[in-house]
This record gives sequence, C-alpha cells and structure tokens, in this order.
Amino acid sequence: MTHLLLALDFGGTKHTAAIAGLGEHQWRSQQRALSPPGADADYDMKTMRSLTWDLLGEERPAAIGVSFGGPVDATTGTVRLSPHVPGWENVPLRRMLEAEFGAPASVDNDANVAALGEHRFGAGRGYDSLLYVTVSTGVGGGWILHGQPWRGAGGMAGEIGHTVVDPDGPVCVCGKRGCVERLAAGPGIAQRAREWLEAQPDRGRVLRALVRHDLEAVTAQMVSQAAAQGDELAWEALEVAAWALGAGIGNAANLVNPQRFVLGGGVTKAGERFWAVIRRVAHETALPEAHFDVVPAALGDDAPLWGAVVLVEECLPSK
Amino acid sequence: MTHLLLALDFGGTKHTAAIAGLGEHQWRSQQRALSPPGADADYDMKTMRSLTWDLLGEERPAAIGVSFGGPVDATTGTVRLSPHVPGWENVPLRRMLEAEFGAPASVDNDANVAALGEHRFGAGRGYDSLLYVTVSTGVGGGWILHGQPWRGAGGMAGEIGHTVVDPDGPVCVCGKRGCVERLAAGPGIAQRAREWLEAQPDRGRVLRALVRHDLEAVTAQMVSQAAAQGDELAWEALEVAAWALGAGIGNAANLVNPQRFVLGGGVTKAGERFWAVIRRVAHETALPEAHFDVVPAALGDDAPLWGAVVLVEECLPSK
Repeated sequence: MTHLLLALDFGGTKHTAAIAGLGEHQWRSQQRALSPPGADADYDMKTMRSLTWDLLGEERPAAIGVSFGGPVDATTGTVRLSPHVPGWENVPLRRMLEAEFGAPASVDNDANVAALGEHRFGAGRGYDSLLYVTVSTGVGGGWILHGQPWRGAGGMAGEIGHTVVDPDGPVCVCGKRGCVERLAAGPGIAQRAREWLEAQPDRGRVLRALVRHDLEAVTAQMVSQAAAQGDELAWEALEVAAWALGAGIGNAANLVNPQRFVLGGGVTKAGERFWAVIRRVAHETALPEAHFDVVPAALGDDAPLWGAVVLVEECLPSK
Repeated sequence: MTHLLLALDFGGTKHTAAIAGLGEHQWRSQQRALSPPGADADYDMKTMRSLTWDLLGEERPAAIGVSFGGPVDATTGTVRLSPHVPGWENVPLRRMLEAEFGAPASVDNDANVAALGEHRFGAGRGYDSLLYVTVSTGVGGGWILHGQPWRGAGGMAGEIGHTVVDPDGPVCVCGKRGCVERLAAGPGIAQRAREWLEAQPDRGRVLRALVRHDLEAVTAQMVSQAAAQGDELAWEALEVAAWALGAGIGNAANLVNPQRFVLGGGVTKAGERFWAVIRRVAHETALPEAHFDVVPAALGDDAPLWGAVVLVEECLPSK
C-alpha cells in the first residue's frame, strides 16, 4: 500500500490541503478555501481541519508537511506569528496537527518550503545551491545549499527582502530605509506609482484610466498592466522594483555564490522588460567571477505544497 | 611517530611557513620572509621553497595546507590570480607543492582558510555558523556553515567586500559604487581622509601633524591614530568605514543568519568607538529576530596558518 502524504499550505489569504502518494508527482486531490478579511488563527485552523477531513475521507495520512505564511521555528514546528492574521503567536502547529491526524508532521515557513519544492520538482532541479525569492505582498526567500535547506542559526535565513539596497530610500515596515521589500513588493510599487501620479499630473494616462482616476485603487498588478500598455510612469515605478531586486540578488551572489536564483510571486509576472532589468543589475552588482542565473519559478502557487511533500518525506518513519 | 603538518601562507607582502605535529596547538617552528616590491610569482615560489626547506631540514611533511592571498579554485588547488603580485594567473600550486615535497596538499584563499582557523582554534570555536571578515588593504570573507566551510558554487562565496551598501557612494576598484571594500578598507579610509583634509583646511589638525602636512602620506593607520587622539575629521573618516561594515554585516545577517561575525585585519584595531558603530549599525540593519554577535578575531596574523593546518588534516591519508 502506498503511503499517503498530506500537504498543507496556510497562506495569508488562502488555505490549501492536498494529498499525494509517496513518490508521486501529481496530486490525488486538493481542497482550497479563501480566508475572509478579519479571520484569526482559530478560524484558519477550523478551515484547514475541515478542508483536510473532506479530502481524506476514510483514509489517513502517513505524514504531514506544512507550509506556513510567516516565521516558524522549524525545529519544534511552532509558528512564531503571522504578519497577516492575528492569534498565531507561538502556536504549536506541529503538535496540534499530529494530535488531530495521528501522523508525524513537519512545519516550516512558506519561503523555505517553496525553495524545497522548486529544488525538487521545479526550476531548481539538479542544482546544488539556490536562493528562492518570492515577490508579492512581501519579499521572502529560502536557501538550498549543498542540496539541503539552509535555515540559519535561528531559522531567519533568506530574508533578502530586508537587506538594504538604498540607505536613502523610503522607510520600510521594518523601520529601515530602502529595503528590497519596500522597493520591490506589490504595496511598495503601488505606493510609488500613486505618489508619482499625484506629483506629476501630466503623466501616467494609461494607469489613471485603469483605476478610473481613483489613485487609492492603484495596485502593483495595475501598474504592471499599464506598463505593458506603454505607460512610462508605470514602467518607471516597476523599474525601481526590478533595480532593487537585481541589487539584492547581486549582493547575495557575492556573499553566498549560489548557482541559481529562482523568482516567484505575482510581481515577477511583470514581463520580459522587468526581468531584463533584474538580470542586468544583478550581474552588474555581482563580481564577474560569481556565475549564476536568475530564472522564473516553475511551480507557481503550488511550490509551497510540493515543498510540503518534500518536508513530509523527511518525517516518514522509514527515514 | 607524529605526522608533521606543513602550513604555508602566501600573503601579498609576506610569506610564512610553519610546522606543527598532528593534533598540536603550538608551532614547532616558523619561518617568515617579506616580499619586496616588484616581486612576481616565480620570486614568491622561490622564497617559499627556500623557507620551507630551511624549516624542514631532514624531516618530511605528511601533508601540506596552503593559504593564498587571492582567488583559488579549491577543488583543483589552482590559483586564479593574485591582486598584488603578477604571474600568478592559473598556477597549479597544489600540484607544484605535491611534486616538490612529496606529500598531499590542499590550497584555498586566505579568507576561507582564516575562517577555518578562527573556527577551530580562535573566536569561532564551538560555533556552527559564522562569517569571518578581514579588513585590511581589501575586505574579504569566509563562511562556516554547519561547521564546515561554505565556498559557494564557484569558490566565490564570502565576498562581503563587494556587496553594495551605498549605491551613491564612491567608485570601487571593481567598478561599482559604494562597495563595503571601497568604504571600509585601508586605502578607502586614507583616500577619504585625504580628500576631506584638502576640502576642509581648518580641520584635521592632529592628522596633518602626524603626516607633517604631506597628505600623500596619509594611511588608514594614521587616521586611526589621529582619531584616537581626538581628531574629529579622522574619526568621521573612520566612522564611514564602521558604518559600511555594519551595514554589510546586517545585510549578511538577514540573508544567511549565522551565529557570529568574526572580524580581523589591521583596520579592525581602530578601537572601541569604531567597534561600537559597527555593532550598532549591524543590529539596526538586521531584523530583530536575527540574533548574532560581532567579535574580534583571536588568532591575528596566524589565522591563515592555523586554518592551513585544518585544511592539512582534511588531506591526510587517514581521513
């Protein structure tokens, strides 16, 4: 009988449960639920429990792998907090899931888990070292070194989003100026475009039309769409994000010299012109002897789930 | 009979050979020679051969560990180049030493080797992860991760000196602006002080007196000395260096989350005020959850030699 693996992805706004057989590369089935605004940790747990029992029916998992959208102590499987959802402070998620489903569980944060997924099944297959970077409402990252996750001394490694690339830049949520996240994540792009639209009334026609002149409605996706339609203000707002990502990646290449950078998340869907700037700046920032490439993630939203499968395999009794 | 280990340190301006018994923590003997200006690779090799034969007398080493002051392909033991001495391009140093002394040799660059030395015998003892940073005429670095050297995919890891901390800063030898090395290494400190002395004729009295008003004679060591004697211009020139080191270290803490940063090299002898700025800026730049400390190297100029001993042990037949 095949071992059944349960993969759970606690996202900020979306929860997914999926099952696969050990060694299989396709899901047997998947259940997904959106989280309403105002949800808390209890609500998230109830949602995930209900999704999972629906999915399992009469079956039982041999092991559970979990991706969580926030900092996690992977050694104990304890969630430290969620940046989006209240009530997740110091929740012993691994222990709760093991008690509920009667199987060993392993929990890590989404960037580390997605790095595992891309390494085993996606754009990082066959690479000994890589940094996975996700660029959406925040900028997170996860390392693979020597073919294994490198989580850092306290599980904090991979925080490329809070490396400073412009000490004179705008203030980030973390309090510093010019972090990669402040310049390159979706909210930062939207805010920059909004400020420029306010300050430069003659520019940004396409973007203004897209939001029907309601500047509060500007999102990074709209900036990206307007840029694709030739709006130069929108493109310049995006270009700053690409520059910041390139600078952060180039610095990481000098410091750690991985073979590859894998970039995922909504913001990275901004098109070839955006990617060209990232790559140019990354290679200008890195020493010429530090060879690497920068490629799109292959698994999209499924990267954390597939990474959870890799985590799962680590906690199977046979290992 | 104890295995005799030969440790060689090819510095930019100084060569050292030393022997120790396997498992011993003291040198049995050491030989040292300064390299004159205008020396080339042939001269360096002749010097080191002669030092070594003097040292060995009738004895033969069981293995040879080598620290080289420049980029090295550690897998083949081939020197890529020396930033200081011509003729070192693609020299198969390991093969040459093995042929000459009839023992297995292992070669790596000085920052990686010094990191090994500090990890095993110095300020990094007992630490699972650290970055060793040397700040003298350049800024180099070497990682220990999982208790082992992390050299990167192409042996280029640890180049904290060429991470950019100020994109509007002065131009570095590598062509970029605002690298840690340009701002924090000795020549960068001296150049900054010199420029300020020229531009601000009413300041820098102590430093001017130290160099007898010959601005070309300003060195980082004099800047440091003048700062210690209360010269505020000199202190501000040093402070920029401490800021750059702190910013680079904070970024590295966010990216890799090691337990400790060990700093060596002449510039780091600039006193407690200098260290306080490094530590403050490093902790301000790092996320509060990324815990680490920043401490002085313990082995001084001997770090590469002791690291060479660690390299040596790796290539002993018994391993």
